[in-house]
Amino acid sequence: MKPIGIVLIHYPVLNRSGQVITSAVTNLDIHDLARLSATYDLSRFYIVTPSAEQQRLVSRIAAHWREGYGASYNVHRKYALKSLKVFSSLEDVLSDWNSLNGTDTRLIITGAKHDKGLNFPEAQKVLEKYPTLLAFGTGHGLAEDLYKEDRFYLNAVRPGGYNHLSVRTAAAIIVDRLLGDINVPEQIFN
Amino acid sequence: MKPIGIVLIHYPVLNRSGQVITSAVTNLDIHDLARLSATYDLSRFYIVTPSAEQQRLVSRIAAHWREGYGASYNVHRKYALKSLKVFSSLEDVLSDWNSLNGTDTRLIITGAKHDKGLNFPEAQKVLEKYPTLLAFGTGHGLAEDLYKEDRFYLNAVRPGGYNHLSVRTAAAIIVDRLLGDINVPEQIFN
Repeated sequence: MKPIGIVLIHYPVLNRSGQVITSAVTNLDIHDLARLSATYDLSRFYIVTPSAEQQRLVSRIAAHWREGYGASYNVHRKYALKSLKVFSSLEDVLSDWNSLNGTDTRLIITGAKHDKGLNFPEAQKVLEKYPTLLAFGTGHGLAEDLYKEDRFYLNAVRPGGYNHLSVRTAAAIIVDRLLGDINVPEQIFN
Repeated sequence: MKPIGIVLIHYPVLNRSGQVITSAVTNLDIHDLARLSATYDLSRFYIVTPSAEQQRLVSRIAAHWREGYGASYNVHRKYALKSLKVFSSLEDVLSDWNSLNGTDTRLIITGAKHDKGLNFPEAQKVLEKYPTLLAFGTGHGLAEDLYKEDRFYLNAVRPGGYNHLSVRTAAAIIVDRLLGDINVPEQIFN
């Protein structure tokens, strides 16, 4: 399996009215997606926010569980948060990722409204061949600027149905659909 | 398909030290699991807590989105929360459910440590034949009292691996694995 990472994007995203905003980082998103990354052996969990204050918040939470009192209190959280990194933009994420994994990375953007993109078996084939980043939006979805031609788009979890899952639960379902069949590495956690 | 419901249990559950406690209801659990229920067309989402204060909290949150300002602000949340009910015990949940769906209901208890229970295809067969409730624990897992002989147990999402998903993400993965193949009903939401 090639390296796989997830990216949680807080800018540029849309608000209710369709305006481009920076959404606030949600504490539980950090923990839920860090644990998801550990469970499926993902190599990176990136958070994108250009807000210096929000970046400090994420770093403080990560440091608490990685190094502070939390690290000895809860060793599972320490393990889960090891892959977390914060950047100001998706471009900065791609630079970091490519420096580790080479430049033939594929970026797959998820979205609750997508219905003309890859289906899940097609996305699995991309993952088998290339280092892949899966991007998830917050707020009311990703801004138009992120929809570029050289990127892949994954169809919604339930195309045509009620599509209002939280980003935490949607990311969990998507990662499990793409990677759930792959054997659990032995002693992934000691 | 027979009716399927989910139950989020806050008592009796274990704390870090293995003592039986009532865990606190988490606001985001309510919303994430309500949306999950709407997405997969589940007929009920039950919350179990014997705490009168916590029951009032859940009712207040549900009322805000079902009837209050929230109902007009966010019609998707209103829809998602329609199936929510709160009870003091799992026995009370079973009474309510059985009064709607008959007494041949199967109760499937999930758990991050289960490895001798049903696998997912086996659980799917139960769901096809019987009205089924899927129970999820909070805190550090369900208390021993809930492990009775006439109940079914579902194996962990990743047996043998890192098993520290949040209950929100674990429930999403489990419901999708069991029901994700089933076609989305048309116009599930109008």
